[in-house]
Amino acid sequence: MLDHHAGLYTDYYEFTMCQAFYLSGKGDIPATFDYFFRENPFGGGYVVFAGLGDLLETLESFRFDDEDIQFLKERGLHPKFLEYLKSFRFRGTVVSVREGEVVFPLETILRVEGTIIETQIIETVLLNIINFESLIATKASRIRSVAGSRRIVDFGLRRAQGYGGIHATKAAIIGGFDATSNVYAAFRFGLELTGTQAHSWIQSFDSELAAFRKFAEIFPERCVLLVDTYNTLKSGLPNAITVAKEMEARGQRLAGIRLDSGDLAYLSRQARTMLNEAGLHYVNIVASNQLDEFVIRSLLEQDAPIDAFGVGTKLVTGQSTAALDGVYKLSMCAERPRLKFSENFAKITLPGRKTVLRYLGRDGMFYGDAVALEGEDRLEWMYHPFFPENRSPVGRMQYEPIMEKAMEGAQATKTWSIRDAAGYARSRLATLAQEHKRFENPHVYKVGISHKLMELRSELVESLHKTFSGGGK
Amino acid sequence: MLDHHAGLYTDYYEFTMCQAFYLSGKGDIPATFDYFFRENPFGGGYVVFAGLGDLLETLESFRFDDEDIQFLKERGLHPKFLEYLKSFRFRGTVVSVREGEVVFPLETILRVEGTIIETQIIETVLLNIINFESLIATKASRIRSVAGSRRIVDFGLRRAQGYGGIHATKAAIIGGFDATSNVYAAFRFGLELTGTQAHSWIQSFDSELAAFRKFAEIFPERCVLLVDTYNTLKSGLPNAITVAKEMEARGQRLAGIRLDSGDLAYLSRQARTMLNEAGLHYVNIVASNQLDEFVIRSLLEQDAPIDAFGVGTKLVTGQSTAALDGVYKLSMCAERPRLKFSENFAKITLPGRKTVLRYLGRDGMFYGDAVALEGEDRLEWMYHPFFPENRSPVGRMQYEPIMEKAMEGAQATKTWSIRDAAGYARSRLATLAQEHKRFENPHVYKVGISHKLMELRSELVESLHKTFSGGGK
Repeated sequence: MLDHHAGLYTDYYEFTMCQAFYLSGKGDIPATFDYFFRENPFGGGYVVFAGLGDLLETLESFRFDDEDIQFLKERGLHPKFLEYLKSFRFRGTVVSVREGEVVFPLETILRVEGTIIETQIIETVLLNIINFESLIATKASRIRSVAGSRRIVDFGLRRAQGYGGIHATKAAIIGGFDATSNVYAAFRFGLELTGTQAHSWIQSFDSELAAFRKFAEIFPERCVLLVDTYNTLKSGLPNAITVAKEMEARGQRLAGIRLDSGDLAYLSRQARTMLNEAGLHYVNIVASNQLDEFVIRSLLEQDAPIDAFGVGTKLVTGQSTAALDGVYKLSMCAERPRLKFSENFAKITLPGRKTVLRYLGRDGMFYGDAVALEGEDRLEWMYHPFFPENRSPVGRMQYEPIMEKAMEGAQATKTWSIRDAAGYARSRLATLAQEHKRFENPHVYKVGISHKLMELRSELVESLHKTFSGGGK
Repeated sequence: MLDHHAGLYTDYYEFTMCQAFYLSGKGDIPATFDYFFRENPFGGGYVVFAGLGDLLETLESFRFDDEDIQFLKERGLHPKFLEYLKSFRFRGTVVSVREGEVVFPLETILRVEGTIIETQIIETVLLNIINFESLIATKASRIRSVAGSRRIVDFGLRRAQGYGGIHATKAAIIGGFDATSNVYAAFRFGLELTGTQAHSWIQSFDSELAAFRKFAEIFPERCVLLVDTYNTLKSGLPNAITVAKEMEARGQRLAGIRLDSGDLAYLSRQARTMLNEAGLHYVNIVASNQLDEFVIRSLLEQDAPIDAFGVGTKLVTGQSTAALDGVYKLSMCAERPRLKFSENFAKITLPGRKTVLRYLGRDGMFYGDAVALEGEDRLEWMYHPFFPENRSPVGRMQYEPIMEKAMEGAQATKTWSIRDAAGYARSRLATLAQEHKRFENPHVYKVGISHKLMELRSELVESLHKTFSGGGK
């Protein structure tokens, strides 16, 4: 999509800052940035991390062509800096949790190391990709959690936020969706495609029955008939049954009927009864129309006999949270730990080069995550990030480091398929206790910090306090 | 962006339906589809129509290359239909209101005429573009309405929905924004770019003062200093004032300071006082951080002396309405009017080839819109779409037809610049009474239908009722 101009998909201040680094002779100082978020979306208890594959692909091809340089020149950037940009490649290191990992607020999820320019200049595109794909993968996983093994399909493209539809679909598959109606995303990412007909097909015929007959004739396999154009129970269902019986006579089977309006619980029950009475037990019922995890849960609580759900707008736009609030903060510069101070203590960032240890409870489920300094392994205690009195003994617990190198020397060091990422998400979600996954007031997953990290932060905060109590400067 | 594969940016059912039209020998029958929406976003009283320019550009270049055809073949489409797609071009007619027009629920905004295949196959991409750009242009216009003549700038890319950030920015400009931080959108659409520095610039120095000094040295023009990295009033402001005075000594002027956290009303007042006391009346105050029309209105009600606002996430994702609910419905087929029936009468569509007449009150403001059949001009009455007893005499009122031909014979017949669209939106919004623009319970703008259109719909509904009361078929 952005093959030719990926380097421009960014905020202008990345360029002004990088030019300033470059012209002040600081361009090559080493730096580390962390990606993390502060709040779970949807009032939920976790996030499914997604977008790593697209990020690495973007970084591998990140460069500026003549047209880009010309544009930046017209906007007033300095000739020397533009000369530098001409041969710019991202050669930094990315250390990250795996795509599909379940992650939690305030912990380091991904860090980027390199020169200050290369780590800074990718900020906006990194945030754009990771924030959005993680948001939608998380939404998809919630819908999967209520749909059980029923089929769930992305129908969202027409109301996606512009070209956001492309990665929404990919993220939906990572989060647990089976297929999509989005042809471009299927083309680009190799996904299962699905789709049959809209109301306009039916309306273009003089009778609904003729429209159904013709469609079944042309698509005898995987034929799903949309039954609500005129009247679902009085017209759509009887006509679909007629066509299904005609197909049977030809040795074919109608795959399904689709309900796209009205009370889906009531209509699906009526439809199932009518289909069964006609001996059409095998015909599936597909439902669509403003679905999300709450509506699907409610339908299934009412025993609605629906076999597959088409989910659109609320999936691909991540209703009701429009954006994951992920940020990208400098944590090391010139080999010294840095923090962003705030009068709101919860917004003070964690300094230093960090990693995350995930502890497992005796039941084999995730117990909690500790953010530690790179190199720390066996911790005795894990401390609450803001209330150190609140600590947990973890010295005897099993744990696994969950961050690993994902890119080095201008190349991704690991790549996983979308299927791998989806499988990983499924297995990790299965190891997260139900109380963290429920929709209403989920139990907060423990994220703590190591003693060393706590001390490092205190030191830096102390020295800042001294500076300001001294007044100015 | 999608230059090479625009034809694939669609739902798969457009292909299955079009293949079915083609193979059943119906591919060339004439059809008309209407674009309209049912509900104003944000609980507001209007929509600013946007996306027409991008739609027409997409339709002009809409084709399938070898790679596309190969992909569709692998997914099982029929060789004859694929052969047809190879030389497919959109040659239909688009009749539309102008980009930037203010539009209202249920009225026809745009109609597409052509063969059933060419009008059907573009459905998804049309909805995707128009729904999203109109949503964001509308959101932007609300923010403009409270900001008055203050500068408003789009900062949203990092939390935009993936590549949705591209058109979000363009739509924001149409809706009234001045500039953007989004380099790609500026490059592609010729927009004003803006941006200075992030916290990381400050953090990378041993002192904030040194960071400010260096930045002002490199960017003496349009320099805006971010003052909240450590402590806004004790550190950021004093340091910015020091640098501003040093700049004055060199004959330069600091353009502004930016507040990005904390209580913006309080901090902006304190900052203004400190700046003024230092004789820096000319230094602007820029504010950002989770802004939207409500926060900006509140800040200005508190007399916060803020000169410019950077608005991000809530602008580019269209908070709190994730999508405009626009639909695309068949209204004519084989020269006969069609409708989509629904047990919910408000969802019965308007049949026939339609146009919209906009009536003007004696005060020169928009009075109401009448949807009429193409060719109708002077109406005596305009009828409520569902309660015909509710009618307004419009026979003596001034009116203007607001739809016009926008594309014919594979080419856009009119093109407007983004600036034109923005100017048009501004002038049309100025002619919409304030009661339709207020945020809380806006007065509903009158949208009615002509007597002929009402009769046509009644006829079609009647004949459907007869069909179903007859049972089946």
